[in-house]
Amino acid sequence: MLRIAIDAMGGDYAPDEIVAGAVSALSDFPHLTVQLVGLEQSLEPLLAKVEEEARGRITIVPATDVINNDESPAMAVRRKQDASIVVATRLVRDGLADGLLTAGSTGAFMAAGLLILGRLPGVKRPALAPILPTIDGHGVVLLDVGANMDATPENLLQYAIMGSIYAEQVLARPKPRVGLLNVGTEPGKGNELAKEAYQLISQRQLNFIGNIEARDLLAGQADVVVTDGFVGNVVLKFMEGMAFGLFEMLKVEFTSDWRSKIGAGLLLPSLRRFKRSLDYSEHGGAPLLGVKQPMIKCHGSSKSKAIYNGLRQALLFIENRSGEVISAAIASSD
Amino acid sequence: MLRIAIDAMGGDYAPDEIVAGAVSALSDFPHLTVQLVGLEQSLEPLLAKVEEEARGRITIVPATDVINNDESPAMAVRRKQDASIVVATRLVRDGLADGLLTAGSTGAFMAAGLLILGRLPGVKRPALAPILPTIDGHGVVLLDVGANMDATPENLLQYAIMGSIYAEQVLARPKPRVGLLNVGTEPGKGNELAKEAYQLISQRQLNFIGNIEARDLLAGQADVVVTDGFVGNVVLKFMEGMAFGLFEMLKVEFTSDWRSKIGAGLLLPSLRRFKRSLDYSEHGGAPLLGVKQPMIKCHGSSKSKAIYNGLRQALLFIENRSGEVISAAIASSD
Repeated sequence: MLRIAIDAMGGDYAPDEIVAGAVSALSDFPHLTVQLVGLEQSLEPLLAKVEEEARGRITIVPATDVINNDESPAMAVRRKQDASIVVATRLVRDGLADGLLTAGSTGAFMAAGLLILGRLPGVKRPALAPILPTIDGHGVVLLDVGANMDATPENLLQYAIMGSIYAEQVLARPKPRVGLLNVGTEPGKGNELAKEAYQLISQRQLNFIGNIEARDLLAGQADVVVTDGFVGNVVLKFMEGMAFGLFEMLKVEFTSDWRSKIGAGLLLPSLRRFKRSLDYSEHGGAPLLGVKQPMIKCHGSSKSKAIYNGLRQALLFIENRSGEVISAAIASSD
Repeated sequence: MLRIAIDAMGGDYAPDEIVAGAVSALSDFPHLTVQLVGLEQSLEPLLAKVEEEARGRITIVPATDVINNDESPAMAVRRKQDASIVVATRLVRDGLADGLLTAGSTGAFMAAGLLILGRLPGVKRPALAPILPTIDGHGVVLLDVGANMDATPENLLQYAIMGSIYAEQVLARPKPRVGLLNVGTEPGKGNELAKEAYQLISQRQLNFIGNIEARDLLAGQADVVVTDGFVGNVVLKFMEGMAFGLFEMLKVEFTSDWRSKIGAGLLLPSLRRFKRSLDYSEHGGAPLLGVKQPMIKCHGSSKSKAIYNGLRQALLFIENRSGEVISAAIASSD
């Protein structure tokens, strides 16, 4: 049995969609047990209709508090000892759970990982590693997207190692192609950080395909793309903003005259499919790579399907002992 | 009379579209004279039908060489003394032209500016400052997008000053709203560079509106957004790649069944308008702010309209003596 602690109170659709995702994962993965961490009186009613066998693999772990997006994450994690993310992370630290999933505050998630679990031996900085949608539909792992703002070349090397292991073991990409986000494809391109990181990464036993220009990031050339947390966060949020902006602009265009309105009506199913394919939350969650136990962050807007996918990722992470593999690979890189 | 040297050989549609853009600018701006720099035998035939008055304001300046995108820019600018961009920049340096426009290699453009014209007094680093499309249609100036890879907080302050003057004088934005690209809106957010730049910029007499998250970059909240050249270049190229990728994905969706095909057919004019509104090349060109004379870089895919708009920008830059204004503002910031 693999045990995952779920922050049932985090996310825009918590707790309903979180619980629904957990329940559907329980029915597909017979070796899964979950600890739903949150308000008992909110969670209990949601389990009324769950069939007995699955219900037997659910434990409710009480937590009365929640950390919101507008709080200082590190301070909130220290002070709110009864917040759902804190209680859930403690379960993992104390060996009562094998991994964790949340759709709550990203800052609190990262702070809980660092402060409560701590880093794997040898890992200098953890990295948050979401999957971005690509044109070919496969998706690309981008890391770091904000766990660590000021990265060193050595940090980027570790991101490359961790991202490669994650892509291989959890996303089932054999020999993952690892790229370095840069302003040109030639080896000498970029700022000092990128130039030095290029040298370090190319000396490692990785399927390193060199620099990836931002314009090719979504083209599917790489399985893993490495960058510092500032740039990664800017790219991730720019993508969100641009997708949103494009739909706003399309909406204006598509309602500008009758001809367009009729056309847009016919295209509605296509457009919906298209929007969904851009929605990287459906790909599951983003692991915080480099902390001692598996931690998965799902998007705040996650519905049950995203939670289900996040739990599947967490299970693969645990089953493959990816943390140990990362630790060993990092140790051999010193 | 204001004299602009035009690299007639640079760009995907050179020399035809470059010359066409120049000719249409000449007819709208009676105080403009242009020097078309390039191969005489290619340029002369293109001027056959130009009316006499306008033809009188065109000089052909011979240049037999061209610098391509795949050359090392600094080396090419030093060695290819007869390249069109080099000859054009020398015209400006020698006082024979008041400003320059090219749609050729960005690297050669920047290298020519730095090596042949040099920086304005007090300017530590020049910055390349294109206009990105925004949802409200106004566009936002983003700088730097790659003139300088490793920026200091002081560099970012100078970008803010230069970008603000450019937006006010050339783009006619009164009291331009200046933002700092960052990973969160709160003042303490970001990497060390962003945190320090925030402090420096907020102490200046600028309409500084604080941090702008990447997701809001295209929302039209700011007139000018400042970032280092690495991040700016990544954002610019990611935008290009994403726009392209979205259209590819839409194309697949829109031809997936008959219903969609009919809808897409009806929407074709809307979609074309939409694509054009995303095409920031139509907004004109990007100045290299901080070099001694006005230099405008148009996108490589520029057609005559973009060249026309770029020339209009160059004229405004020259008329407003924006270089002198920048120099004075930078001097007072020391």
